[in-house]
Amino acid sequence: MHPSLNSKIITPQEAALQINNNEVLGFSGFTPSGYPKVIPVALAERGEQIRAQGEDFGVAVYTGASTGDELDGALARAGIMKVRMPYQSNRDVRAGINNGTIQYFDQHLSHMAKLVRQGFVPPPTTAIIEAVDIEVQGDTAHVYLAGSGGCSATYMMVADRVFIELNSFYGPGLKGMHDVYIPCAHPCVDSIPLLSAGGRIGKPYVEIPVSKIAGIIETNMPDQMGGFVDPDEESKTIAAHILDFLRHERQKGRLPVDLPYQSGVGNVANAVLGSMAEDPNQAPLSLFTEVIQDSIFQIIENDKLVVASGASLTLSIPGQEKLKANLDQWRDKFVIRQQEISNNPEVVRRLGTISMNTAIEVDIFGNANSTHMVGTSMMNGIGGSGDFTRNAYLPIFMTPSTAKGGAVSCVVPMVSHTDHHEHSTQIFVTERGLADLRGLSPVQRAREIIKNCAHPDYQPLLTDYLEYGLKNAKGIHTPHTLSRAFEFHTRFLETGSMLP
Amino acid sequence: MHPSLNSKIITPQEAALQINNNEVLGFSGFTPSGYPKVIPVALAERGEQIRAQGEDFGVAVYTGASTGDELDGALARAGIMKVRMPYQSNRDVRAGINNGTIQYFDQHLSHMAKLVRQGFVPPPTTAIIEAVDIEVQGDTAHVYLAGSGGCSATYMMVADRVFIELNSFYGPGLKGMHDVYIPCAHPCVDSIPLLSAGGRIGKPYVEIPVSKIAGIIETNMPDQMGGFVDPDEESKTIAAHILDFLRHERQKGRLPVDLPYQSGVGNVANAVLGSMAEDPNQAPLSLFTEVIQDSIFQIIENDKLVVASGASLTLSIPGQEKLKANLDQWRDKFVIRQQEISNNPEVVRRLGTISMNTAIEVDIFGNANSTHMVGTSMMNGIGGSGDFTRNAYLPIFMTPSTAKGGAVSCVVPMVSHTDHHEHSTQIFVTERGLADLRGLSPVQRAREIIKNCAHPDYQPLLTDYLEYGLKNAKGIHTPHTLSRAFEFHTRFLETGSMLP
Repeated sequence: MHPSLNSKIITPQEAALQINNNEVLGFSGFTPSGYPKVIPVALAERGEQIRAQGEDFGVAVYTGASTGDELDGALARAGIMKVRMPYQSNRDVRAGINNGTIQYFDQHLSHMAKLVRQGFVPPPTTAIIEAVDIEVQGDTAHVYLAGSGGCSATYMMVADRVFIELNSFYGPGLKGMHDVYIPCAHPCVDSIPLLSAGGRIGKPYVEIPVSKIAGIIETNMPDQMGGFVDPDEESKTIAAHILDFLRHERQKGRLPVDLPYQSGVGNVANAVLGSMAEDPNQAPLSLFTEVIQDSIFQIIENDKLVVASGASLTLSIPGQEKLKANLDQWRDKFVIRQQEISNNPEVVRRLGTISMNTAIEVDIFGNANSTHMVGTSMMNGIGGSGDFTRNAYLPIFMTPSTAKGGAVSCVVPMVSHTDHHEHSTQIFVTERGLADLRGLSPVQRAREIIKNCAHPDYQPLLTDYLEYGLKNAKGIHTPHTLSRAFEFHTRFLETGSMLP
Repeated sequence: MHPSLNSKIITPQEAALQINNNEVLGFSGFTPSGYPKVIPVALAERGEQIRAQGEDFGVAVYTGASTGDELDGALARAGIMKVRMPYQSNRDVRAGINNGTIQYFDQHLSHMAKLVRQGFVPPPTTAIIEAVDIEVQGDTAHVYLAGSGGCSATYMMVADRVFIELNSFYGPGLKGMHDVYIPCAHPCVDSIPLLSAGGRIGKPYVEIPVSKIAGIIETNMPDQMGGFVDPDEESKTIAAHILDFLRHERQKGRLPVDLPYQSGVGNVANAVLGSMAEDPNQAPLSLFTEVIQDSIFQIIENDKLVVASGASLTLSIPGQEKLKANLDQWRDKFVIRQQEISNNPEVVRRLGTISMNTAIEVDIFGNANSTHMVGTSMMNGIGGSGDFTRNAYLPIFMTPSTAKGGAVSCVVPMVSHTDHHEHSTQIFVTERGLADLRGLSPVQRAREIIKNCAHPDYQPLLTDYLEYGLKNAKGIHTPHTLSRAFEFHTRFLETGSMLP
């Protein structure tokens, strides 16, 4: 850090003291990666104290996506998170959203920065950002972001002041991994000049006036990312179905071999990439994705990585240590982008991305629910699944066929919330098999999905629903029976099982 | 037409005779504009005769979007339309889709050509295209398309043979209006170089080998487009709400004045553009849209047109005569594109398009249904509403608050089919008012929509549904009551009215 910045060093408590009631805060962080770790804790403590005195205190929390417990958990537990956007996965935030104390605006991740710059949501007045280094050139600071891109550059641009947590965990070795690019604002019109998964179109840092830096706090902490569990049999079977299908598509000449992959967050997605890494017939992989997870090491070790582009390094703590130890060797293989670019519809479509996302449930007519439990409770949010699915060369959704030990069918008559509709989905996969929905009418789709994806315990129920609709519905293009459409869900709410 | 093509002139019956059973046919046409008018009629007659002899005969019909009755109506009534994609609005096609005799694959319009080129749907083997002229250069024919772009260039590229209906209605005066561009195929990766609504990036014709032309039929017929009705009070009120809102947004500095508009098909959309044309405070308009409707003349006459880009000239017959009489003067103000480009997510987003589409129904939590009546019957299809909404600078949905004389509320507890979900919608408008959903949680949205958009007859019912959910739902992020979610719809199915 440049010595001229020394005077800006403060404590987390001093930063927290400057936050106003009802302020909109823009945080770095995308998954538990590159999020500030000490100011939010201090802010939570301060907020709790104020509220204990019977006064009102709360803030609106904008991030890249989910963050660590020191941010989302602390603010939610302190009861000072009034508004949250755009994606979260913290237990306490989720509880607040679902009991109505946190107003949650669930946006496509690629839209968030744009909505802020357009003034369509109240802009953050304070940005709180984790960084690995700050350089100074005259009046300008070059802020090198930590493990994630998120919406940090936009929040820093629109905010009046910026607090920076300077984390020495990775240290300046991470410098050069970010590619920071913000599309120009209207009336300027330009294409996003990214023509390959690994291309670089911006700067390795965010530029802000030095005068905007309201305080710097030095830290040395890894991202608090839970470890990945080893893939279970179900995930491996899902991965095998996908690999079979991709091989089949390649043989049919429908899949140029070098298309980049996107893979959602979580263990199934991690397992699929792991399986690809271990497949001797798999060509080297370009990832144009949101999150770079631990499976990246398997890909590197099998010499299968062309390049990995994402909005964050979503690595377990051992994974972070491993990356840190190999930064010089691997740096050029990674590009971390602002989520507006990592998930950009224009670029996703142009590159021909193959998307692989998990769904909570799918329905027999080809719709997918990524966000809601039983239609009412928010799980995490839509994240980037829409950004990628809607524009992918080949969009794939995966889910186990059942959950809760078989009490829940993940294939239902009608999804209780639609995040990806029949017009945008193509391939559904469960551990039972794969349904290729391309070019099919809803009834044809239903037969494929029931046959290939549903669990045998639920197949007769789903077939009965379909056949009943075909006999009784007013129109049989999509032969729903609206009075029965949620019978699986209501039975589950009443009895704890979707089975009769 | 070049004299060397004279030998290719045939009758519609001769063309129809060459079509095989179960063949996939790629037609020109986007709305009743630029669609072939005599071969389909001859094909329908032939198919009827074959079927009258007890033999099977049917075809898959790919188009740009809806077409005229001579195509969609004739083939559907003959019973030979087995498969249809991607959008239709013909009564007889709709009947076939909803009684299960036509398999309908309802795709985003911007995806259709790409799906064909990728081989993700069976490619057309024969293309049947309306054109205004054909030039010959060596072995290559330059085919100048008629009133619509559709997917014609892709169908002509992938098909083994092309039949051309050479329509002299507009005559060669239409030459120069089309801009034909097909994105390069992977592994080639390029951005679509369109940087303004009126930009030209392709050729004014489609190039094919002369040898691919299997027959030419000369015609002289206008497009059979029904006339527009004069806007009713409801449409004018909806338009007024939108204009008020746009003015408000401009005052707030949230709307750069020169953004292009997209406006869906139909009378409400036509009324909105008409009102903008008549508004003395409205700056000149750029249209980056699907369909150029009769309101274009009002815009031109008020000297408010910068440029109109679309996939078709969707003009009434008097409108077609008017355009024809003014082609030399107006040609440069119009660009007709392939629908892959007119509706392209990349370009829609880059230009900052303001989208205005009609919905069949919306729900209180911010989802819109554009396709299905009472959850089961297909109306027309999603068309380009998803292409634009998902990528617009500011997406607007409009619907009257009620239909069928008040027996149907167009604001419901849960849409019976989701085509645009809460993550992608921003503004809802009915004749009652406008709801601005930006940055709001589902419950906040519900209060705005009920208050501003719902009809007073239905407001208490909707409020009751919301409050019941807030008290009883397991999670109240989206406080649905799944057992009651379709009570409006089931009541309508039982009693003919959504009112108790």
